[in-house]
Formats: sequence, C-alpha cells, structure tokens
Amino acid sequence: MTFLTVSGGVTAAAGFKAAALHAGIKYSDADKLDLALVLSDQPAAAAGVYTLNQYAAAPVQWCRQVTAEGLAYGFIVNSGIANTVTGAEGLSRAKAMAQVAADIAGCPAEQILVCSTGVIGPQIPMEKVWSAAPALREGLSKEAGGKAALAIMTTDTVAKEAAITFTLGGKSVTLGGMAKGSGMIMPNMATMLAFITTDAAIAPALLQKALRQATDVSFNMICVDGDTSTNDSFIVLANGMAGNPLIEEENEDYQTFAAALTEVAISLAKKIAADGEGASHFLEVRVLQGRTWQDAKKIAKAVVASNLVKAAFFGQDANWGRIACAAGYSGADFDPEKVDITLSSAAGAETVMRAGTGLLFDEAAAAKILAEKEITVTIDLHDGEAETTAWGCDLTYDYVKINGDYRS
Amino acid sequence: MTFLTVSGGVTAAAGFKAAALHAGIKYSDADKLDLALVLSDQPAAAAGVYTLNQYAAAPVQWCRQVTAEGLAYGFIVNSGIANTVTGAEGLSRAKAMAQVAADIAGCPAEQILVCSTGVIGPQIPMEKVWSAAPALREGLSKEAGGKAALAIMTTDTVAKEAAITFTLGGKSVTLGGMAKGSGMIMPNMATMLAFITTDAAIAPALLQKALRQATDVSFNMICVDGDTSTNDSFIVLANGMAGNPLIEEENEDYQTFAAALTEVAISLAKKIAADGEGASHFLEVRVLQGRTWQDAKKIAKAVVASNLVKAAFFGQDANWGRIACAAGYSGADFDPEKVDITLSSAAGAETVMRAGTGLLFDEAAAAKILAEKEITVTIDLHDGEAETTAWGCDLTYDYVKINGDYRS
Repeated sequence: MTFLTVSGGVTAAAGFKAAALHAGIKYSDADKLDLALVLSDQPAAAAGVYTLNQYAAAPVQWCRQVTAEGLAYGFIVNSGIANTVTGAEGLSRAKAMAQVAADIAGCPAEQILVCSTGVIGPQIPMEKVWSAAPALREGLSKEAGGKAALAIMTTDTVAKEAAITFTLGGKSVTLGGMAKGSGMIMPNMATMLAFITTDAAIAPALLQKALRQATDVSFNMICVDGDTSTNDSFIVLANGMAGNPLIEEENEDYQTFAAALTEVAISLAKKIAADGEGASHFLEVRVLQGRTWQDAKKIAKAVVASNLVKAAFFGQDANWGRIACAAGYSGADFDPEKVDITLSSAAGAETVMRAGTGLLFDEAAAAKILAEKEITVTIDLHDGEAETTAWGCDLTYDYVKINGDYRS
Repeated sequence: MTFLTVSGGVTAAAGFKAAALHAGIKYSDADKLDLALVLSDQPAAAAGVYTLNQYAAAPVQWCRQVTAEGLAYGFIVNSGIANTVTGAEGLSRAKAMAQVAADIAGCPAEQILVCSTGVIGPQIPMEKVWSAAPALREGLSKEAGGKAALAIMTTDTVAKEAAITFTLGGKSVTLGGMAKGSGMIMPNMATMLAFITTDAAIAPALLQKALRQATDVSFNMICVDGDTSTNDSFIVLANGMAGNPLIEEENEDYQTFAAALTEVAISLAKKIAADGEGASHFLEVRVLQGRTWQDAKKIAKAVVASNLVKAAFFGQDANWGRIACAAGYSGADFDPEKVDITLSSAAGAETVMRAGTGLLFDEAAAAKILAEKEITVTIDLHDGEAETTAWGCDLTYDYVKINGDYRS
C-alpha cells in the first residue's frame, strides 16, 4: 500500500481545528506555548491506549473513561505539569480542564479528552487555564495545528508531526497527528503523548483495534531511557467527514486504514526516538528471522534500551559484544550460535558477528559507519520468520545534564 | 548474630593462598595486575551461581561443570578479556587456563574454577598465561590476597574485600571474599565476579543453598546500569580447615553460616554499587511493609535502576515524582494511595510523599540531604510485612564517558 505524505499534523484531516497559547502553567518564558486545544466540527469516534504505570496520571484516568464510551469532540493538552500523583484534587482539575474545552465545543465534558505532561507532583493552576479560555476559543483554526504540536513539547527540541492521504471506498481520506516525548520514554502500551486525527468514518471498536495494532509496532517499539511514564497516552479521533463508507467490519478498507494509521504512528514514534533527550545518534534495531514476534521484540527492545549499547554509539565504538550481551539477557528464545550482527548507515555496512562469533572486521570502515547520525543495527537470528524493528538513541552527557536539573 | 570484621579478603580463611601479577593479557600498563590465582591447601566444597545471559562466557560454562561436582582446589581469574562469544576455541582456552592452575595445585583441571572479565569478543592470549605460570606458582602466599583483589579489577576504582570471623561448633571460623564490578551491573542470579572463601566445613549441597540465599539479598539487589553481564559469577569455596563439625543439615550451625555468608556478600555487593562507573552518590533504596518480598524487590530494583531517578540524584534534585513513577511501572502489586517516600542521609530526613500524594516539603533541607555522598530512599508501602533493600548509584557524565570509550 502506498500513502501520500502531506504537510500538517493534527489538523490535516477535514473538520479539525486547533488553538495553542502560553497560559503560564509552569514556564515563565512567554514564547513557550503550553496549552493546546484540538476540536472536531462533528463528534468523532475516539480510541486510546494508556500507560500501565500504577501511578497513572489524573488525565489518563479521565481519558480512559472517555474512550471507553468511544465518542469525543476533541482534546485539551497542557505541558509543564503532569497532573500525576495529585489525588482526588488532580482528577477534579482534569475534569475542570475538560469543562473548559467542552464549553467551547458545546458538548458535555465527558466528550473531551485531557492530557498533561511535565513535572510529577504539582496541581494544575486552574485560574491560568480559565484565563486562557477566551483566547483558545478565538484562536481555533486549521492553521494552528503546528502551534499545537509546539505547545505539547517539554524537553523536546523539535515539534513532531506527520500526515498522509489515501483512498477509502472511493473517497480521499487524510490522517495526521502530532506527538511529544523526549525523556521517560519506554512506552508500555503507548507513548508519552501522541494524537492522530482523521476524517475517515470508522466504528469506535474497530478504531480501537487498529490503534492497538499500530501501537505494538510503533510507540511500543521505542526507548529513550527505559522509564515508563505515568502519562503515556496515544489517542485517535476519526470524525467521518471524508465521507467514506463507515468501516464496521475487518474488510479491505479496515486493512487499508490500519496500515495508514500504523504508518503515521511509526513516523511519529521515530521522531520521538530521534529527539531523545541529549541524543546525538538515532538508532534503528532490526531483528530478522526470529522464532516468534515476541522473541524478536524482546531482543530489539533490550538492545535499544541498553545503557552500555547506547553509550558505545555515543562513543562511535563498534562494541558489538554489548549488543550480543543485551540480546543474551533479553529473555528471548533464540539460538546464540546462529546470530549475525551487522552495523550499517549511509556510509556502508559491516558485519561484526557471524554465527554467534565475532569477526575480524574493518575497524576503519566501522568508524565511518558510526560517524553518521542515523545508525542501523541488524540482528539476524536465522531461527524463524518473525521480524521487528525498534528505535532509540544514544546515551550522552546531555541526557545526564538535562535530567540532573529538569525539575528545578 | 554478631560477626567480627577482620582485615583481608579471599585469603583471610585458613589454608587459602593467592598470587597475582601483570601478564599483559590486554592492559599495556605493567602496573595493572591482570591475572590472579587463589588455591586452597586442601580440596574445598565449591558452590556457584552464574549469569542467566544466553551468551554465558566460556569460563562460566566451565565453572558450571566444576561446581556441579561440588569440589575445587581454587580459581584462576583474568581481567581485560571476557572470553565471551568466543565459540569452541574460547571454551578450550578456559580449560587451558584451568590446566595452568591445576598443574600448580597438583589436581585435575576439572577441580579448578576459571573466571574472566573485560571486553567481549577477543580470545585469551594463552601464551601470556603460560609465560606467567612460574611466577604465579612462586608468588603464592597468604599476603597476596589483596593483590588478587586488584588483579580482577577493570573499570573499578577501588579493590573490594570483606572478611569476618565467628564461631561454629566451638571452632573459630573465618569467611572472606573479594569482588569486582563497576559497569554492566544488573545481576540476575549473581554479579560480575565475586569470590568468597572460608575454612568452615560444610557439605557442597548446603553451601550451594546458603549461596543462593545470600545472592538473593546481596548481588541480586544491586544495579549500576541495568545491563546483565555475560560473565556474572559468584563462587564460594569452603575447605573445612577450621575444624568445625561438618554442616550436613539445616541446623543452627547452618543458619549461622548462612547469615555470615550473607553479611559478607552484602558487604561486597554494596562496595560494587558504591564503585559504580562514574558514580558520585551511593544510593540505598529500602522498601518497607510490602505485600510480598517479590513485590518489595520489584519496587526497590526499579527505583535503583531508573535512569531518571539516578540522574536526579546526580543533580541533587529531590525529584520524588520519578521515584513514584518507577515504583508504578515496576510490576509490583501494591496500593499507590498508601505509599510514603522519605529521603535521608547523614544530613537528616525529609518525607516528600505521604499516602500517595506529594508533600510541601522543605526544599532547603532536602538539598542538604542530597548533597551527602550516601543517600537512602525509604518507600513505605503500608501494605504488608515484607521488606528489602537494593543498592545502586547515580548516573553521571563520567558513566557516559567511561562507556563511550571503554573498548578502544
């Protein structure tokens, strides 16, 4: 299937508008947008997957209820404060944020999703959100989608958007999204925050199913630091304004839609990995010919999460032993004596381990490969037909610096 | 039970001698000792636990066979090269190292343990080991125990030894050991390398049982970077020269011995955590009143392994939200609404979270507490009677630096 990439993000699909501004929730810098609103012109099928962390944020608890009903008009998101470990008061403030957006949309609060990201602990200063409400209402436009992507950033260094168009039932459908996330990234069900909107018509149950499928091979396959956030949320809204025949069963249209959703989710997930806190290299770990997909996944994620592997890529050191070591402790079922490992980038490819034993490879060629910004590690298990890919980044001084003084 | 701490390490117990020297296995610096031999004057009961990494090093494969038989005269250890992912040739070289020690001890190679630590991939240069054999034989002495502890170091900055005496069946028994480990530390069954010798008389099966008990609350409770090494080994030799009645059942003497073994194992494990690569703070994470010991352990290890928690302590930031977050994703069964978190050190104690909600604590007092080198995090689950403790260190620029250029 081919999808045409288009510009824009969360407002690329028909009927979606956004607004974003500086409400002063935490950041004093007036240039830092920290509050975003995205609304659909008509009610949308809503689906979401959320963190499995036991300290799930108050807005996550709220969103679970909303997507369980399967219908929403949009979402309101703040950065700076996570509204996590905030007790009953935190939940009440998450609902109050929903009410602000609901008043603008003209719908019940229960049809508005709420997401927060930032420091764990403090309460959301609601007076700042209430003060911002009139400007949010007036600012709503298709063009503000990019500003919304900026407003949800915390330690991110770039905004993350992606959008594609494709045909469903003879109608042109658009699917676009935005995401944020740079640290505390080891998603388990979903990532920090990701939002995809589409004008496709699809029933909520099938939207949820496609979302889970897409999550498994996108946000669940990235790792910056191994810490699973309390606020991870991946939300999709489908408002049906493309006019395609409603997808109500797993027919060909469903397969097309699910593939499109997966493509945008992977695109956003890779942008999160590439923008990992302090990262100087983007790492792609491909695992081929595994016994099962779960085995391939365990290895890909163990390698991309290993501090020692990540530090070696920072040092541009072809330390393949650490890659084998991480595969070895991953818990995957595989035959260590069959494994090949190859390092590659735009500068070439070098096989460093074959059939479970190290090779005398060309160190100079390896050094050139590792000097590139984007590196691929290919681990061929020669043990089956399953394959998968994970994405991450290297471990640098700057990661430590950023997280040594993030809160203060 | 009280145990008297004494000086010395792996040769503190009666009948153990050591030798250590620079064989030039990897390090060019002639001052860096890299080969150690420890022998007992008479055959010793031998027990060991080893890495669960599928790429278990060749010497680990060798040692598993030796401790399965339960009898050994001693061990030979090199640093610089790990003899891991080295195939059949690596196993043959591990046996050749055993033969060198066996010729000195006058026993079969199958009664000598072999350990290696260092870079994964290269083969051990056997001619260097063979050349060193005469000097190893001549160097054997009780006094060289400290040199052996130096010879097994890689990125370690200090040698790690511990020894105690106590009474068993009316006889004075000594138990002493040495360990190494600074990076690739997230033991799963055992740690990088740890050796304990004792003159106690105990049957091999009970020695193995006591070893497993001690491992669970010592080496399995430390974490530097979350990477489980391919070479983790914790070995105990008991040569019976103290003359105590042979421990053949789980009587009071066994309980005393197991407690003594645990004390020395914890002492060595804490020294490894405190010497974590690049560490500027030593972290102790105590979990109290858990539902089960496994739940308490999951939380303690998740907190001590979290890159974000570790970076916050480097930055001396009382970022308790990251501690709660790590507990939340640990997989432990607990009630998030009951949890208290307290930070303490020689400079005082400050409770930062009570009953699952953050407190407005004294930031100045917290800053003083976190400026100390040794910090304790106490997580009280108020949910049962199980408790445990894990140890680790902070994540610093130097960790990244050390691992960015370790191999080259």
